[in-house]
Amino acid sequence: MTDVSHDGTRMVALQIDDYGPWTTTPEPRRETDLQALQSRLFATVADFFARFDGYAFADRYDNMIGVANGAGPAIFERLQTQVANQYPVTVSVGVGTAGTPRTALEAANGVLQQAGSAQDADRTEVHDHRVVDDATAGTVTIAHFDVVDATGTLTDRVSSAEASHTIRRAVLELREQMWERHGAVTQFVGGDNAIAVCPSLTPSTLDSVNDHVRETTGVELQVGVGRGPTAHAAGDGAKHALEHCRETGERIHAAFSLVER
Amino acid sequence: MTDVSHDGTRMVALQIDDYGPWTTTPEPRRETDLQALQSRLFATVADFFARFDGYAFADRYDNMIGVANGAGPAIFERLQTQVANQYPVTVSVGVGTAGTPRTALEAANGVLQQAGSAQDADRTEVHDHRVVDDATAGTVTIAHFDVVDATGTLTDRVSSAEASHTIRRAVLELREQMWERHGAVTQFVGGDNAIAVCPSLTPSTLDSVNDHVRETTGVELQVGVGRGPTAHAAGDGAKHALEHCRETGERIHAAFSLVER
Amino acid sequence: MTDVSHDGTRMVALQIDDYGPWTTTPEPRRETDLQALQSRLFATVADFFARFDGYAFADRYDNMIGVANGAGPAIFERLQTQVANQYPVTVSVGVGTAGTPRTALEAANGVLQQAGSAQDADRTEVHDHRVVDDATAGTVTIAHFDVVDATGTLTDRVSSAEASHTIRRAVLELREQMWERHGAVTQFVGGDNAIAVCPSLTPSTLDSVNDHVRETTGVELQVGVGRGPTAHAAGDGAKHALEHCRETGERIHAAFSLVER
Amino acid sequence: MTDVSHDGTRMVALQIDDYGPWTTTPEPRRETDLQALQSRLFATVADFFARFDGYAFADRYDNMIGVANGAGPAIFERLQTQVANQYPVTVSVGVGTAGTPRTALEAANGVLQQAGSAQDADRTEVHDHRVVDDATAGTVTIAHFDVVDATGTLTDRVSSAEASHTIRRAVLELREQMWERHGAVTQFVGGDNAIAVCPSLTPSTLDSVNDHVRETTGVELQVGVGRGPTAHAAGDGAKHALEHCRETGERIHAAFSLVER
Repeated sequence: MTDVSHDGTRMVALQIDDYGPWTTTPEPRRETDLQALQSRLFATVADFFARFDGYAFADRYDNMIGVANGAGPAIFERLQTQVANQYPVTVSVGVGTAGTPRTALEAANGVLQQAGSAQDADRTEVHDHRVVDDATAGTVTIAHFDVVDATGTLTDRVSSAEASHTIRRAVLELREQMWERHGAVTQFVGGDNAIAVCPSLTPSTLDSVNDHVRETTGVELQVGVGRGPTAHAAGDGAKHALEHCRETGERIHAAFSLVER
Repeated sequence: MTDVSHDGTRMVALQIDDYGPWTTTPEPRRETDLQALQSRLFATVADFFARFDGYAFADRYDNMIGVANGAGPAIFERLQTQVANQYPVTVSVGVGTAGTPRTALEAANGVLQQAGSAQDADRTEVHDHRVVDDATAGTVTIAHFDVVDATGTLTDRVSSAEASHTIRRAVLELREQMWERHGAVTQFVGGDNAIAVCPSLTPSTLDSVNDHVRETTGVELQVGVGRGPTAHAAGDGAKHALEHCRETGERIHAAFSLVER
Repeated sequence: MTDVSHDGTRMVALQIDDYGPWTTTPEPRRETDLQALQSRLFATVADFFARFDGYAFADRYDNMIGVANGAGPAIFERLQTQVANQYPVTVSVGVGTAGTPRTALEAANGVLQQAGSAQDADRTEVHDHRVVDDATAGTVTIAHFDVVDATGTLTDRVSSAEASHTIRRAVLELREQMWERHGAVTQFVGGDNAIAVCPSLTPSTLDSVNDHVRETTGVELQVGVGRGPTAHAAGDGAKHALEHCRETGERIHAAFSLVER
Repeated sequence: MTDVSHDGTRMVALQIDDYGPWTTTPEPRRETDLQALQSRLFATVADFFARFDGYAFADRYDNMIGVANGAGPAIFERLQTQVANQYPVTVSVGVGTAGTPRTALEAANGVLQQAGSAQDADRTEVHDHRVVDDATAGTVTIAHFDVVDATGTLTDRVSSAEASHTIRRAVLELREQMWERHGAVTQFVGGDNAIAVCPSLTPSTLDSVNDHVRETTGVELQVGVGRGPTAHAAGDGAKHALEHCRETGERIHAAFSLVER
């Protein structure tokens, strides 16, 4: 019998330091400049996570999220220096390692919250790691969802505003359900795609989540699942599994046997 | 008496051509590469809209949105060429000019939808303009919302996932309400901020919208409103008005007399 | 008889403020971070000059150069704000309008030099315009040079270091000759290409310049020349003319009659 | 007695595939778009080399150079995929490991040249490694040069064109001398700085090189030297050593004993 209690996830919470005040000091800064700054900063973060086959999500832009099972926490000092050297803002980084993505993200958030307020001008470039219950960064499970025939039913048909409302509502139901009931961290990643960093999953979990989204929003999701030592390895399996869904009409497909654990 | 029926908004729908298939051909592409690509492409779009004091929104990344009251529709050919010269993808651009932001965006979406499917490999770099009822690009009204004390009640307190759920749910209620009842186009722009491109507004409209969001999600919003010949002029007024709210505790403030029309 | 004495060029000198000290404070910053910063900052500048069909050159990176015949000097305040909003450094901008590119660049440099030292921490975001002899920004002449069969004789044959030595030496002779004898501003733009912003030119001028480069460095250049109201209009003509050289073996070709003035 | 014959350098030659033809097909592309593309592509390359504490140089932009002592050659497949996913062009990568930077770069160039022409449309994304005489990637020596009081004597005094001519001429003499007589690869890195990747060096070598530059161009250089397992480690030492020169007036300073080998 294997003890899997230490087989956890390493999540990263990234926060632009004192960003709100900066955007309005001394005068409110031009919105398009801020939009471009935020987007390029996130692109730098995403490219950085690729170093160790991690995943990064833009989340709220001033608060970004990452999965870092392939990396030691110290590597993020390098990211902090790069950001300070290339951008007009700095970032704080909390790292959390715990049994589930949810508890790991909560630990990562806790690192930042304990260090001070996000709008405390004296709290800059925080960097720390919190481990919950001796967890280590082990196997990652990624579920990659999209909307069945989003192009045919939404993009090519209704206004882009209505398509976005529909997709965003579905993703919101999905992420809350996955967070509250299954300890997963789910993010919208563009188009009609959402990616969930999951603890172990069973087909019935995914079935019930997809049922919930369909019942509350009318949106039919399909999902591919992958598993691996890093977010990229797991996510690549999930992408291939989702391709299988697109080709076969299957609604849930895994790159491995979903009942194994 | 002034006839303001022609005083409309010019909205832009930008769509990456055949993007879904590209992301998985010949094999699914690495998620962080796609995230970085989408973000930098949007940053290029945002910087381009700054040329004529416009606004741009990332929306779903593969479908972006802009406000272009200060620009003629032909300028977007230049954006299309720049994207083709600097990115591995191309974009189609629909421009709509109509009496309200909603009808203008619908017209812009219609341009693209009529030209073919978003996943039609033969439909690339569409560029056209649709005018509804002889509307012209006139005065823009921007409402800039944020969450009252988001840092104190959310960012510094709960997990970043829960803060995002709460803010995203509030913004979703806001955008649906603004779209369906008031003909406005509303977008999340990072942090706890949302920007609405509005037709004329009255204080009671904003009151009722904020009430609706509070009642459905428990989130208290404040909003600054500005008006001007371009999105930036209007938005800058809105930002200053929102600063006034932050300083005074007022919930709704306009850079001009909100009852004037 | 036309008085062309007012038909001048508008050149722009851009300088990162107090950059040298910043790169080593408090400790020397990582070289790759600086290289990436400089390159992206220049890309932002180049995209900005595209707004008004101008040209921009990286020159020494901390000192960049632009051609802005299509723009009023005030537009660069907008560039300065964008840089301050998106980068960890600020830039000063001197604009010069004069009868030749050389005198215009000297005027632009003079604006900055008179305002203080490039390494004066108190001298930031200078922005001024100097006009020499009532010149106005008129027609631009661009000469686009490249090395005859650089790929066959250099890139595919010798080491990249030796190819660079050869091309850089040829460009250095070209730029000094063009500057000192013909009042033109010449910049390396990548590969085996150099672009000269010229006063009026005659075929014999170009012949003698190409002869000089061949005699001092052994490198055979070909050159296309264009003229227009902006750098892009002139440069696009020059590029087409250079294509003509590549196809026909002609060494000098102009998109217009070179003897006209 | 230590056998240091295997203690070599790993150099990387990066080449945009079939770039010249692409820039003019179907029509010449806008110069500022190309300048921005090249610069951002190089920034991506520079950030990538930072992963393993390497150095990257823009060289001619279509041909870039890197130092990769800290990395295995296989890592560059990842860079090639990232470029293909984020840019409209692809890159070929030759890696060479040899006793001196010069022979390593020649080996890296040879990889590309043997695979076909830089303008062969069928030769894309070449990736190979050539080892000369069983060399391994060992200790790197970096010499970081700049011009004594460049700001006071050039930037603040003469036109930016003349300052560039002077500095470029000095760097050209430096790089040819370092290449031909000492087997070093030298690159201009902006401002008045040049970085040389060197085999072992003695003070008298640097003295004679600085003398040569002064005699041929009138430019007085100072130089800091560092050594380490990676380009960054060596280069950081060199930067600190150069700071020592700036503070003390010394012309040559090393972060280690220069006579040790």
